[in-house]
Amino acid sequence: MKPYFYPLLIFLLLVFCSSCEKQKEKINFPKTDLGQSALIPKPLNIQASYNAFGLGKNTVIYTDKQDTLYSKVGQFLSKKIQFRTTLSLPLNASTEPENQDAPENSIFILESKNTALSASESYELEIKQDSILIQAPTPEAAFRGVQTLLQLIPEKSNDTLTNSSLWVIPAGKITDRPTFGYRGTMLDVARHFFTVEEVKKYIDLIAYYKLNVLHLHLTDDQGWRIEVKSWPKLTEIGGKTEVGGEAGGFYTQSDYQEIVEYAAERFITIIPEIDMPGHTNAASLSYPFLDGTGKPLKSYTGTRVGFSSFNTRKDTVYSFLDDVIRELAAITPGPYIHIGGDESFVTKKKDYKYFVERVEGIVQKHGKNMIGWDEIVEADISPKTIAQHWRTEENALKAAEKGNKVILSPAKKAYLDMKYDSLSKHGLDWAGHITVDSAYIWNPSTFVKDLPTESILGIEAPLWSETISNSSEMEYLAFPRVIGYAELGWSTPENRNWEDYKTRLARQLHFLEKNNVNFYRSPLIEW
Amino acid sequence: MKPYFYPLLIFLLLVFCSSCEKQKEKINFPKTDLGQSALIPKPLNIQASYNAFGLGKNTVIYTDKQDTLYSKVGQFLSKKIQFRTTLSLPLNASTEPENQDAPENSIFILESKNTALSASESYELEIKQDSILIQAPTPEAAFRGVQTLLQLIPEKSNDTLTNSSLWVIPAGKITDRPTFGYRGTMLDVARHFFTVEEVKKYIDLIAYYKLNVLHLHLTDDQGWRIEVKSWPKLTEIGGKTEVGGEAGGFYTQSDYQEIVEYAAERFITIIPEIDMPGHTNAASLSYPFLDGTGKPLKSYTGTRVGFSSFNTRKDTVYSFLDDVIRELAAITPGPYIHIGGDESFVTKKKDYKYFVERVEGIVQKHGKNMIGWDEIVEADISPKTIAQHWRTEENALKAAEKGNKVILSPAKKAYLDMKYDSLSKHGLDWAGHITVDSAYIWNPSTFVKDLPTESILGIEAPLWSETISNSSEMEYLAFPRVIGYAELGWSTPENRNWEDYKTRLARQLHFLEKNNVNFYRSPLIEW
Repeated sequence: MKPYFYPLLIFLLLVFCSSCEKQKEKINFPKTDLGQSALIPKPLNIQASYNAFGLGKNTVIYTDKQDTLYSKVGQFLSKKIQFRTTLSLPLNASTEPENQDAPENSIFILESKNTALSASESYELEIKQDSILIQAPTPEAAFRGVQTLLQLIPEKSNDTLTNSSLWVIPAGKITDRPTFGYRGTMLDVARHFFTVEEVKKYIDLIAYYKLNVLHLHLTDDQGWRIEVKSWPKLTEIGGKTEVGGEAGGFYTQSDYQEIVEYAAERFITIIPEIDMPGHTNAASLSYPFLDGTGKPLKSYTGTRVGFSSFNTRKDTVYSFLDDVIRELAAITPGPYIHIGGDESFVTKKKDYKYFVERVEGIVQKHGKNMIGWDEIVEADISPKTIAQHWRTEENALKAAEKGNKVILSPAKKAYLDMKYDSLSKHGLDWAGHITVDSAYIWNPSTFVKDLPTESILGIEAPLWSETISNSSEMEYLAFPRVIGYAELGWSTPENRNWEDYKTRLARQLHFLEKNNVNFYRSPLIEW
Repeated sequence: MKPYFYPLLIFLLLVFCSSCEKQKEKINFPKTDLGQSALIPKPLNIQASYNAFGLGKNTVIYTDKQDTLYSKVGQFLSKKIQFRTTLSLPLNASTEPENQDAPENSIFILESKNTALSASESYELEIKQDSILIQAPTPEAAFRGVQTLLQLIPEKSNDTLTNSSLWVIPAGKITDRPTFGYRGTMLDVARHFFTVEEVKKYIDLIAYYKLNVLHLHLTDDQGWRIEVKSWPKLTEIGGKTEVGGEAGGFYTQSDYQEIVEYAAERFITIIPEIDMPGHTNAASLSYPFLDGTGKPLKSYTGTRVGFSSFNTRKDTVYSFLDDVIRELAAITPGPYIHIGGDESFVTKKKDYKYFVERVEGIVQKHGKNMIGWDEIVEADISPKTIAQHWRTEENALKAAEKGNKVILSPAKKAYLDMKYDSLSKHGLDWAGHITVDSAYIWNPSTFVKDLPTESILGIEAPLWSETISNSSEMEYLAFPRVIGYAELGWSTPENRNWEDYKTRLARQLHFLEKNNVNFYRSPLIEW
């Protein structure tokens, strides 16, 4: 062999070995380490310490007091720790956080001076033997970090030689931020009404998994669920029915504000949806001048879709909508109002477009951004408006082309009301069955072919309520799948793996049971 | 009221209040705190910290290396930790204990420079967040401290964010020493033979509860269990039988030495007993010249007592005994040889006294201290000799009067072979039933009225084996009662309380199950 062949040979061997190494990494996906298996969504980066912090009755919480939102995050942490452990930890008790007198056994929640933490939900959680430090650029980010900390509190306490227990929290440094800024779920309170308490329970549960949006589908053919003071019959008449003929119900504006505030304490944005111009039978029944079909109006408690429509060519309809959206915008601090726009099968195409464009103007006039189901891209919408992709991929691509952001809710992957399988106690199956693994194993960033990542605002898992009418039934369909959607929205594709997720999901048992969640015990998971 | 009454009134009030306070203390005995409930015997003093040490794969053990016994104690600890946790902790790995490079997460076992720790079994165990320190004046004392530490290792580990667990040990400082220097149990291997492995298992179990004596009842009418090289028929003939007619068995001297060494590693003294002049049928059957009854000799597999006797007036009997005791003394590093002396119903009183006195001379000639059952006080024994009280309180008092020390084994309280109750699967009942609470609720220091505390060497719980023939049956009678005797021997009366002990005994479940102990699940204990 010629001597100059040697370096070439070595080079080729090195290339070969390195590709083998890569192959190996792919196959042996690193299984989650012990305490890490408590965490969903999987954090971006974990530097594990072989060590622990003892959470106990001497632990105190300090927060940045300049911003009262930081101290509210501290209060939230303290309340949740009490629920989990019965420990009642004082918040900002006596000394300043930076004070030398601060007891050793402290949890600090501080505004970050670290410029690396720029994204509004990025945080750093450092757990050392003698202290815990959450650093975040915003209270919202601090709140996300608090969920990670809560997930690390073990189910069982450890004995001390005193009469008080310690909850031993594994040590390490977690640097984390979400992949998508929009991570939501939708609840249809129109087909069946859900009480304020039921909605609050759902909000509390999804907050634990770092979701940040709850979209409320407030109106449909079967019921109108939000008080509009200038149009009282909407709830007086339209609120009295629901699927199956039960009593229905509605939220007073004060009820709604209670929900909004409860969500805001968990840094969850409520997005109200008034579905139109279709799905409007309950509204037209309350005020018949709204109707655009000309057919006899009667209350509807079935589950068909696509038979109702507003009259899109009447100015009084837009005056009405101006009132509705004005009142709704006034009690909705979040930036969005959802106008539905799906399945308007009895609205002429040109009427539909005209309607969407005029309503967009009204929404924007009241200082909000419009969201609509993917059909709205047929209209000439402004680039600020957001399309929620649920059925037609062409619509998602069209939105991206126009420069509109897209929320991903593909029915066959992300609809929480699809049955798990043929034995599923509740749910529909028009988009197929969605098992717990199928719900998890997809990549939102690449799911719609050719949809540019930069067009994707985030993901949302809608829960339509034709087949469910209370918390227990709602939880059966939502859990555990919604936990997987939370991870799809937060964690990077590199950090996601079904085998690893499965283990972590099984570890949620204690949380779900302690919170009386009627979750579906999928046989795929070793609970 | 005259003014000088006021001081008197105040004085009386103070006396009254103080007596109330005492009354209250008596009633509200402080219940054991969490981690403390793992501990039997109850340590003398516990200063609890609200804190913990994380035992894990990075933990290292350092001992005083000058004395190899300290490092053996360290080895023992390491081995037991491995059994409990699978952790394999290095011992005296690289650096000196005092070295600054010593890793933080260390366990130190050091010779004490603290003069307060003078008693040979007193130790101090300090568990801090970053280190554990056992200080003791002797390796034996360090070994006792190691048991306390082992008892504090929790059943369940805690997760870390790495792939390794931590076992969280509660922190605090324990200062401890035994009430009695002699804390024993006896095993009758004569009525039924127990294998070396069975005896070793028993030794290992009692070491965990800080007993320091195992008395082996090696010979009786039904069998001779120890090889005597100069008199081989003792085992060739006398070793072949046992109660019920099974095969019997015996220990070669090397077997015995194996037991002695195994016990010594646990700082347990083996006390061998050659029971005589009664209980000697097996010996006389092997060498008929030993017999003093003149009746026909045949092997005996029943359970009667008091029918056999050596010939106390033959010099050859004493030559024989000189050989037996010489050989036994040579392989017994402990200071005692037990000569039995009980139930010699067919030996004349003056012959019995003569025999005991001559045998005492032989024992002492071979450098050992004699122990005998309480009947031996009838003889003119030396003040060094120890009487083991089992049946007649007068004998215990007589021993004390003579200046002899007494071991307390009152049958009605301390005999492990008494049935728990009428449903007991094994055991006898001639001294009554002994329930788990009755076995515990008595004070050795005051049990024999007028017996001065300074005459009490300690306590011993004998386990006669007429009704048991293997480890499983032995454990049924011994556990959990022997655990209580361990506490009676070690802990102060002020630190003992049934209600508190009951909780601690229930906590032994994991240890007993992990060690496959067939303990009696007394319904008095909430296991």
